[in-house]
Amino acid sequence: MNPKTQYKLLDRIDSPADLKGLSLHELEGLAEEIRQKIIETVSMTGGHLAPSLGAVELAIALHYVFDMPKDKIIWDVGHQAYAHKLLTGRRDQFHTLRTYGGISGFPKRAESPFDTFNTGHSSTSISAGLGISTAKALKGEKGKVIAVIGDGSMTAGMAFEGLNQSGHMEKDLIVVLNDNAMSISPNVGAFSSFLSRKMTGKRFVGFKKEIEVFLKSIPGVGEDILNVARKWEDSFLTFFTQGMLFEALRFKYIGPIKGHRIDRLIETFKNTQHLEGPVLIHAVTVKGKGYGPAEKDPAHYHGVGSFEISTGAPPKNGPKPPPSYTEVFGRTMVELGRENKKLFAITAAMPEGTGLTEFAEVYPERFLDVGIAEQHAVTFAAGLATEGFRPVVAIYSTFLQRAYDQIIHDVCLPGLPVVFAIDRGGLVGEDGPTHHGHFDITYLRSLPNMTLMAPKDENELRHMLYTALQQPGPVGIRYPRGKGLGVPMDKDYETIPIGKSEILRQGKDLLILALGDKVNPSLEAAFHLEKEGHSACVVNCRFVKPLDRQLGELAGSIGRVLVVEENIRQGGLGGAVLEMFNDMGVENVRTKRIGLPDKFVEHGPSALLREKYGLDSSGILKEARDLCQ
Amino acid sequence: MNPKTQYKLLDRIDSPADLKGLSLHELEGLAEEIRQKIIETVSMTGGHLAPSLGAVELAIALHYVFDMPKDKIIWDVGHQAYAHKLLTGRRDQFHTLRTYGGISGFPKRAESPFDTFNTGHSSTSISAGLGISTAKALKGEKGKVIAVIGDGSMTAGMAFEGLNQSGHMEKDLIVVLNDNAMSISPNVGAFSSFLSRKMTGKRFVGFKKEIEVFLKSIPGVGEDILNVARKWEDSFLTFFTQGMLFEALRFKYIGPIKGHRIDRLIETFKNTQHLEGPVLIHAVTVKGKGYGPAEKDPAHYHGVGSFEISTGAPPKNGPKPPPSYTEVFGRTMVELGRENKKLFAITAAMPEGTGLTEFAEVYPERFLDVGIAEQHAVTFAAGLATEGFRPVVAIYSTFLQRAYDQIIHDVCLPGLPVVFAIDRGGLVGEDGPTHHGHFDITYLRSLPNMTLMAPKDENELRHMLYTALQQPGPVGIRYPRGKGLGVPMDKDYETIPIGKSEILRQGKDLLILALGDKVNPSLEAAFHLEKEGHSACVVNCRFVKPLDRQLGELAGSIGRVLVVEENIRQGGLGGAVLEMFNDMGVENVRTKRIGLPDKFVEHGPSALLREKYGLDSSGILKEARDLCQ
Repeated sequence: MNPKTQYKLLDRIDSPADLKGLSLHELEGLAEEIRQKIIETVSMTGGHLAPSLGAVELAIALHYVFDMPKDKIIWDVGHQAYAHKLLTGRRDQFHTLRTYGGISGFPKRAESPFDTFNTGHSSTSISAGLGISTAKALKGEKGKVIAVIGDGSMTAGMAFEGLNQSGHMEKDLIVVLNDNAMSISPNVGAFSSFLSRKMTGKRFVGFKKEIEVFLKSIPGVGEDILNVARKWEDSFLTFFTQGMLFEALRFKYIGPIKGHRIDRLIETFKNTQHLEGPVLIHAVTVKGKGYGPAEKDPAHYHGVGSFEISTGAPPKNGPKPPPSYTEVFGRTMVELGRENKKLFAITAAMPEGTGLTEFAEVYPERFLDVGIAEQHAVTFAAGLATEGFRPVVAIYSTFLQRAYDQIIHDVCLPGLPVVFAIDRGGLVGEDGPTHHGHFDITYLRSLPNMTLMAPKDENELRHMLYTALQQPGPVGIRYPRGKGLGVPMDKDYETIPIGKSEILRQGKDLLILALGDKVNPSLEAAFHLEKEGHSACVVNCRFVKPLDRQLGELAGSIGRVLVVEENIRQGGLGGAVLEMFNDMGVENVRTKRIGLPDKFVEHGPSALLREKYGLDSSGILKEARDLCQ
Repeated sequence: MNPKTQYKLLDRIDSPADLKGLSLHELEGLAEEIRQKIIETVSMTGGHLAPSLGAVELAIALHYVFDMPKDKIIWDVGHQAYAHKLLTGRRDQFHTLRTYGGISGFPKRAESPFDTFNTGHSSTSISAGLGISTAKALKGEKGKVIAVIGDGSMTAGMAFEGLNQSGHMEKDLIVVLNDNAMSISPNVGAFSSFLSRKMTGKRFVGFKKEIEVFLKSIPGVGEDILNVARKWEDSFLTFFTQGMLFEALRFKYIGPIKGHRIDRLIETFKNTQHLEGPVLIHAVTVKGKGYGPAEKDPAHYHGVGSFEISTGAPPKNGPKPPPSYTEVFGRTMVELGRENKKLFAITAAMPEGTGLTEFAEVYPERFLDVGIAEQHAVTFAAGLATEGFRPVVAIYSTFLQRAYDQIIHDVCLPGLPVVFAIDRGGLVGEDGPTHHGHFDITYLRSLPNMTLMAPKDENELRHMLYTALQQPGPVGIRYPRGKGLGVPMDKDYETIPIGKSEILRQGKDLLILALGDKVNPSLEAAFHLEKEGHSACVVNCRFVKPLDRQLGELAGSIGRVLVVEENIRQGGLGGAVLEMFNDMGVENVRTKRIGLPDKFVEHGPSALLREKYGLDSSGILKEARDLCQ
């Protein structure tokens, strides 16, 4: 398995049309080759390994039976679509997966006509599919629309909204439920245990009993039929549980079928082609299928960096890297939870990603993974807060967008003390535009009652979390993806005065106002600028809201200001600084704002993107130099 | 029925404790008095009449059985909580309902300890209730938590997220499904027909057949039992439909019960008190119950202005008022839909409120009411757009917040041509802080690929809609609640050049940059300013994004700028103007920004609120005068 591996079958597939002539045996061989290709590639580029390995046969069977792109597939989230990419003319670019300028880790309309709908966030596929199907019906066009959605994505409210509408409209729509009993982490919620084939415990007994009581209440039904029914538990269960829910929503339910049996999938899809109205096919798959380490630990291999294929371990590193912000957040939560019995941690399907695994183990009664349900997460936290608890909602910046209304309406309006731990603020690298977290400063700083902070390093994150938990109202703490600076950690916690910035370096020619992880490169830039004869005062803003008014006075006295943030420039910290200057009547200050431009930023290594968009120390230096001249 | 009406029973109820000693007969009498009081009050103040009339017995029975505020009720949306307010110590303030300084139309923690959780937007009650119940369990506190939610609110994804989690956690939680087969408009979606007692048509036949086929497949079951089952349609249906869905989500299902029978409600609630884990009580009610006109047209009486009790008609007005923006939008859609066969209109449970009723009648195949499901609405529109349709998504500003992530991820990122018709932008008046639409300028102008406009009057709204439908990417059009200016309507449509503002009045001392319905009071202010010896140039910005760069040059030449918008000041048009000046290097311009302050604005008449916050012509004049001096 090296980059030059020859793929006997895959090398013949330039488009889905080339699948049609293959025998079942060949399709099975192709599945193996695609798995190899995915493992080989992702071991180098990193990526969503386990989800894509679980959907290889699904992709093959769908493209074998249906006629894409006349028929349309929407891959929900899209992290399982690598096989789809390999089958749709992107085999020879596949080694560029997730690299700068290479193909995206997600379906992307601009990349291929086979990518029907851009995805990245969860649970959009049913709504989009229904829209496409409605359009096709209006145009009188033939062609099926297929939404492939995982059981994890199915727990988000949006998926329910889509199902509810689809059942009502009775348009042609095939929903393939790719059920691997996992989302990113093992699933939570009543829905997933409902889907489970293992519903044999207490719950099933109770459920059966209710049905029995009902059947008995019908005159003429005796013990006989009940005895028979009891022997038929399997089909009984399937029909009355999985099927019923979707039937209730007016979908025709088919399944469960074995999701790695190409023959079964093909047969089922062929039968489905002639059905009208909404159909749900329930396919049972294994996340990480075919790669031992990923099957064993699918949560870890959900999204991975590069690894050694033989062991699954990451390549051997040099010296131990500094801990990530995520790790520091997680450890701090565990420490603070010891004293603060009201501390409650909430994640939306990301216990590992947000660093809360240990907290969940140590304080299981004060931890909740709500599944992919950010809206619910925030309002649940608001409920806890009304009862005197101190909920910390840890959600990536990009996914917190889903709960925007709940942040406004259920937290900020009543002024409840909910802390938002906003991981992955700013650029996130290889996952690209669907995952960059660069709107949060804008959308959160505009909300009344909100306090918004960003730490300059991982040590300050600890103090900020400590500080946030003492505030009487909502607080957001925004920090970046990836490693910290490796600074020493204070053992004791310190309360940071709300709205006070920190001057890290004195200077008289220029004032640099930097936020979060932009503080360190700003200091580097100031160091270089000094050598060029200009002295810059560097401030760690700490707070976007309330913004330190003393900075207005300082700006007035220095006369030149450079604002540096990793957020979209519209309405971000730079905007906040201009507004504060304007409100304070600070005039005659030359101000420049460094931030992300008014476009969606592509995928690629964060360091490269930061260089490209002038957010590293040399970009800051360049603007600083310009301002000083 | 005049304000001095004496209420024999209600006048004795100062708190829910006073209910406990009443007989059933007295409770029924109390219900009648509460209805009278609500009708009497709302006929003067306006308000959510029909929902509140439908929940009178529910409120009485809940407060009779449970022990508030130790037990907690959360009223979903909160527009049905008038009886609750009357029973919890607010009888004597009730005549101030929705008036400035008076009691709110929604539950509000600051108003009463009986208002457990602030509501206003739909479908938050289950999540909040679960948070409260979880907190109580951790604290070892006794007490039940009850979420009262309508069947309309149940269609929002967030409610499903809450149910799913509640079933999983098995905390004590009582969900009362207040099922009146209506939300604001008649309900849509598979879920509501599923709840319906009238599922007797084609669908029921198919459903029964499936169950029959299954039963037959069990050896030993013959025609006999099927014949019997067929005779028992009612209970068969209830058990296998309504109950099953909630049982599937692990709720204990009780119902349906008659929601206006206090005896039945009390009995059911009493029985429920001793149950553990999540329980769903399905109560069937009539929206508008007890007031003929409201029972007959519950959609109209969902939320009304003042009316004459005897007829239900609005008080006789003087001259015919100008049409509202909503009406003009609706009419324009009908006109444009005639030529443009790709135009598709989408609303989220607001066909009447957004003015789309006529469009729905004329082009039923190109109209969709998705129910309370804003997330789905936007992504469904994105799906339509990928197939060449021109969807217009009409959602109130405050509710569009629910779809923020979908706007970013599914529309702006792929740059799809979806038009957002954003009604109720700015202050909405009596509905207050949960319903003011004053964040939209900020959160929409920060999004790449978005074009954002606001018309100066109802005639310009027509041209803007026409213009938006020619754009290749996403467009938002934001307009206010209420009547237009009564300007003449152009018959022909005109394409407005994108990003071009309009100078309405020349002047040399001051430049007023006004947005949307702030243009007219700005002109008035300029007229008065002229008399005081200062001439103001007044510009109708038209576009927030892209913002007209020529305004930068104009500002530079005039030297004084006043920006006027009805949006939160952070990151709004004022911020955009400062950012543009900064980017363009426009310096030495004295700029002031008029907008809403950094707080949630209270309820009250819009005119009064505008006066208070300086958003009327005299407020603008004052700031303009200051700037000129």
